[in-house]
Amino acid sequence: MKKNDRNLYLTNINVDEAVKKYIDKFKDRINNPDTEKIEVIYSLGRVSADPIFAKYSSPNYNASAMDGIAVIAEKTYQASENNAVRLINVDDYMLVDTGDPIIEPYNAVIMIEDVEEIDENTVEITKAASPWQHIRPIGEDIVANEMIIPIKHKIRPVDIGALLSGGITKINVYKKPTVGIIPTGTEIVEPGSKMEIGSIIESNSRIFEGLTKEYGGIPNRYSPVVDNYNKLKKKIMQSVKENDITIINAGSSAGTEDYTVNIIRELGEVIVHGIASKPGKPAILGVINNKPVMGIPGYPVSAYLVFDIISREIISRYQGILPEKPITIEALSSRRIVSSLKHREYVRIKLGKVGDKLIATPLNRGAGVTMSLVRADGVLIIPQNSEGVEAGEKVNIQLYKNLDDVENTIVSIGSHDLIMDMFSNYIHKSNSKYNLSSAHVGSMGGIMSLRRKETHISPIHLLDENTGKYNISFIVKYLNNMNIVLVKGIKRIQGFMVNKNNPKNISNFIDIANNDIIFVNRQKGAGTRLLTDYMLKKNKISASNIIGYEREMTTHMAVAAAVASGSADVGVGVYSAAKAMGLDFIPISEEEYDFAIPEEYLKDNKIQLFIEILKDKDFQTEIVKLGGYKFEEAGKLIKVKDNN
Amino acid sequence: MKKNDRNLYLTNINVDEAVKKYIDKFKDRINNPDTEKIEVIYSLGRVSADPIFAKYSSPNYNASAMDGIAVIAEKTYQASENNAVRLINVDDYMLVDTGDPIIEPYNAVIMIEDVEEIDENTVEITKAASPWQHIRPIGEDIVANEMIIPIKHKIRPVDIGALLSGGITKINVYKKPTVGIIPTGTEIVEPGSKMEIGSIIESNSRIFEGLTKEYGGIPNRYSPVVDNYNKLKKKIMQSVKENDITIINAGSSAGTEDYTVNIIRELGEVIVHGIASKPGKPAILGVINNKPVMGIPGYPVSAYLVFDIISREIISRYQGILPEKPITIEALSSRRIVSSLKHREYVRIKLGKVGDKLIATPLNRGAGVTMSLVRADGVLIIPQNSEGVEAGEKVNIQLYKNLDDVENTIVSIGSHDLIMDMFSNYIHKSNSKYNLSSAHVGSMGGIMSLRRKETHISPIHLLDENTGKYNISFIVKYLNNMNIVLVKGIKRIQGFMVNKNNPKNISNFIDIANNDIIFVNRQKGAGTRLLTDYMLKKNKISASNIIGYEREMTTHMAVAAAVASGSADVGVGVYSAAKAMGLDFIPISEEEYDFAIPEEYLKDNKIQLFIEILKDKDFQTEIVKLGGYKFEEAGKLIKVKDNN
Repeated sequence: MKKNDRNLYLTNINVDEAVKKYIDKFKDRINNPDTEKIEVIYSLGRVSADPIFAKYSSPNYNASAMDGIAVIAEKTYQASENNAVRLINVDDYMLVDTGDPIIEPYNAVIMIEDVEEIDENTVEITKAASPWQHIRPIGEDIVANEMIIPIKHKIRPVDIGALLSGGITKINVYKKPTVGIIPTGTEIVEPGSKMEIGSIIESNSRIFEGLTKEYGGIPNRYSPVVDNYNKLKKKIMQSVKENDITIINAGSSAGTEDYTVNIIRELGEVIVHGIASKPGKPAILGVINNKPVMGIPGYPVSAYLVFDIISREIISRYQGILPEKPITIEALSSRRIVSSLKHREYVRIKLGKVGDKLIATPLNRGAGVTMSLVRADGVLIIPQNSEGVEAGEKVNIQLYKNLDDVENTIVSIGSHDLIMDMFSNYIHKSNSKYNLSSAHVGSMGGIMSLRRKETHISPIHLLDENTGKYNISFIVKYLNNMNIVLVKGIKRIQGFMVNKNNPKNISNFIDIANNDIIFVNRQKGAGTRLLTDYMLKKNKISASNIIGYEREMTTHMAVAAAVASGSADVGVGVYSAAKAMGLDFIPISEEEYDFAIPEEYLKDNKIQLFIEILKDKDFQTEIVKLGGYKFEEAGKLIKVKDNN
Repeated sequence: MKKNDRNLYLTNINVDEAVKKYIDKFKDRINNPDTEKIEVIYSLGRVSADPIFAKYSSPNYNASAMDGIAVIAEKTYQASENNAVRLINVDDYMLVDTGDPIIEPYNAVIMIEDVEEIDENTVEITKAASPWQHIRPIGEDIVANEMIIPIKHKIRPVDIGALLSGGITKINVYKKPTVGIIPTGTEIVEPGSKMEIGSIIESNSRIFEGLTKEYGGIPNRYSPVVDNYNKLKKKIMQSVKENDITIINAGSSAGTEDYTVNIIRELGEVIVHGIASKPGKPAILGVINNKPVMGIPGYPVSAYLVFDIISREIISRYQGILPEKPITIEALSSRRIVSSLKHREYVRIKLGKVGDKLIATPLNRGAGVTMSLVRADGVLIIPQNSEGVEAGEKVNIQLYKNLDDVENTIVSIGSHDLIMDMFSNYIHKSNSKYNLSSAHVGSMGGIMSLRRKETHISPIHLLDENTGKYNISFIVKYLNNMNIVLVKGIKRIQGFMVNKNNPKNISNFIDIANNDIIFVNRQKGAGTRLLTDYMLKKNKISASNIIGYEREMTTHMAVAAAVASGSADVGVGVYSAAKAMGLDFIPISEEEYDFAIPEEYLKDNKIQLFIEILKDKDFQTEIVKLGGYKFEEAGKLIKVKDNN
């Protein structure tokens, strides 16, 4: 290994500065984007490259605005309730439908409801018509030569209608920029390929494809290129030739096989390598043949954010528009979020309307966690000059979802169980406008969230060492100033999850306190962790004798995955997780997984829906089928205060 | 004419009730929409028909989270600043890039920045590694069998990435409903066809095409059908056979040629004919062969609204989703808006942020005015049980545009001139984030808007009969409590607009007071109206001697159009309007078209931009080219208080 083979030294340029510097390189193109002439009927979503002026007026004749009769106003002046006036066909009136032309000598319209038919050629009216009544004059909608849409206007369905009505059939629009997307890396495989140890499914390029379409560009994805300088160079040259913009994914950092920056340097110029952004630092902003060539980091969240912040800006401006500014709302941060002064940080956020407060809870901050983007309701941007936010502080969140969806969300923070996924699904299936957001911080984490009024519901399974009973005593102890109702949930079996046929022959906690056995634990505050600690104490085993006691996972499935992958021999969890990962399961105990809910929320429709589903027989049958679950008193309400 | 040939009697069903009743007819299909299996990479914007669970974990092996070396943590424990530990290649460490698998016996990663190279096979470290540091454990992002997206989820680019990472390549989604669109009417012609008196360009179907795409359906437009019962019936039968949903445009009302309702009745069932909506009353909600068949009124605004309210609901639900709820904001109504208790009214609204108040100003309420939709920033819904809103009342506006665009809008309310269109264009062309919204209510209307603090700018040309001077005295009189600056604009020539070669030989106002001459006027409060009245008074002519004095148009172009169409012989307006409509122009006088602006807004960037453009030589040249304009002191500021 030669250290100088690596691009160790990335710059740390402020994000806005980097974007400005980069955009500036392409100002000629941006000030004068390429145009093309297209049919108006195919112009939806395109951007006008000229102001468009009407060719015809609309209507282009004086038109009846009603179904009725066209009359000569002067001949109706004598008509009144007491003095019906008779009109004779053609001389005095003519039958007209809405939109029919009003021609001389007629100069007013009387609606059909006000006309009494006498015979085929005679009508009677009892109300005078004023000149021009119920007539749409020429140009009422559009006057010839008036501007229908300005330049740089993104064309909507209604604009298409107005343009056609104004006699326009073709318009100049800016060309959609083409975006070449090159996935790289020897380790990446196409979706659907055979997976080996070290294989990573190539997915970022498909995210870029989708985003490119959403931003108005035309994606042009190439097959993945292995980590080879010359092969990558050839592909970059091809893409630069074939596209307006080129994106190279992964290989933008400082590893031994990160060739992108050197290739761009060889073929053109590197404007920026390294931006003060977390995630997203190792971005490369380059130019080859006057075209933007960007190296985007491989971690999915970094990739998404760099594309969204920088590539979007270029794709938009190449069509003559600015990126649409995201909708921002104010919320209260439920946690302290520490950030470094070295960079701007993008924190994915889950939002929930609890009571009348909008609560922002940070999701996993790892750059590799795509699911944090999938689950996010928005993003909190912590500026470079800030050390973060305090719990309870007001923060601005850029929305990824409609605020309405956020307000219709049942917020659950607490222990994790598969049942929460099933709930979410059941709600969606019922065509309900509500949805469930479930954050997994363990049972004690849930209790704390209830205290901070961040959640509607907290799923808990907390074993009281003294009474051997579940949940109630914890609510009494930690939520003593609140009116909490415990909604009975499910009984579930906790056990050891071990590999098929239990190769290490584990049957109890004493077996685990063995140098030969690697354990994987749950995080502090998880009910399962409490159960583990309770069992260790009961068996008088010290945690220091358990190898892997410190390695913490936040869900049952993550524990099961660790065992299935061989990085641990055993973990504690529920049957359904073991079954899903093809593991054997050795039962330890049956526990009560219930829902703590502040009483005031019980009258909320969405909370009522939650409890209804819990009691739903079809739902229960589906859960029981998973194995390891029992329903006994599901949906029963226990007012905790009354019970103590 | 037989009255009973017409469908005179429409019902007046509450809109929500009508939708509910209609939706209910298709509940089987809505509860169980058709599905299809597609590739994940083509699933952008589609709606999941199942919950999707991960097939693989991601990463599916323990992966290095850094570029660096994989080590055995236990062998590093002695390392410290004072005690460098040497590690030997393969036995103690292995070089890894981000994403490389960490295989036994290695169990931690040290980042490359913390490694000192000694020789090709030896490194030194001065910091201990803890087990599992800088390793992304299996399933850190996605755990096999966990739910990636629930059922009925609209797929975004990031969901595609997560699905692929989770090993999913194909998914079940709901089919996009096909929407047959049938334009009808003997009077309609395809865009680009020769126009005759009575021809209407068919454009609504193209609006429906665009909206259908935006709502996730597949439009299938048919050629227009003439008003003939059998031809229309045949086309409806064809569309019902070929599509999930059929839309028939125009002919939904009660005219002699409105066949739609009878055809639906013959072939199926009419559920609703007539909804309590303005615009949009004569909607037909029908069923043929268990499929929705809707008759949508022909006026473009009615057509748009009925499609948006009712057809959208069906198109969305046929894909398993609900229509996205529009974003709503609170604003102050600048006017009294009267509405009937008989219907719900949809009022198109122009919004402006003036000072710190968001002001909602109603646009033209005519059902035929497409441009009111093109120009609208949003819509105010006045409920059926309300008689309207008062000026200054708080109202909720459903946004058609990004609120940000609204806040970047320069609001101009006052007199109309082509210069305002040119301004709007110049701003867009400069890549500015700002835009100009120009409402035409005449000069006095502009003054009143300034008083009510509804506008940033008011273009005025008000002639003081006593002094013969323009504008200043009106500001002093009507805006005496405000600090107003008059920004000098342009000088323009007002004159008579007459047909080519002046066939009625008009040269002054005396010529107009003649039974043989039909005049067309501007609305009360327009500067041009004041000029007309001033000239009539000067010539001692009574308005009652002018035929057409009562017929009011709101723009110069509308007056010119009336003359060009022959519905009037003469009107007063500016040269550019006459020229644009191919009319002759007989000058009357030169007037001063200036901008009244509250002093406090002068420091606002967008107002500064406005004044800069006014002074811009290129801009002035472009205007002067139109003819009839002169720039003398453009952009000069006159503090009105100081001048009196």
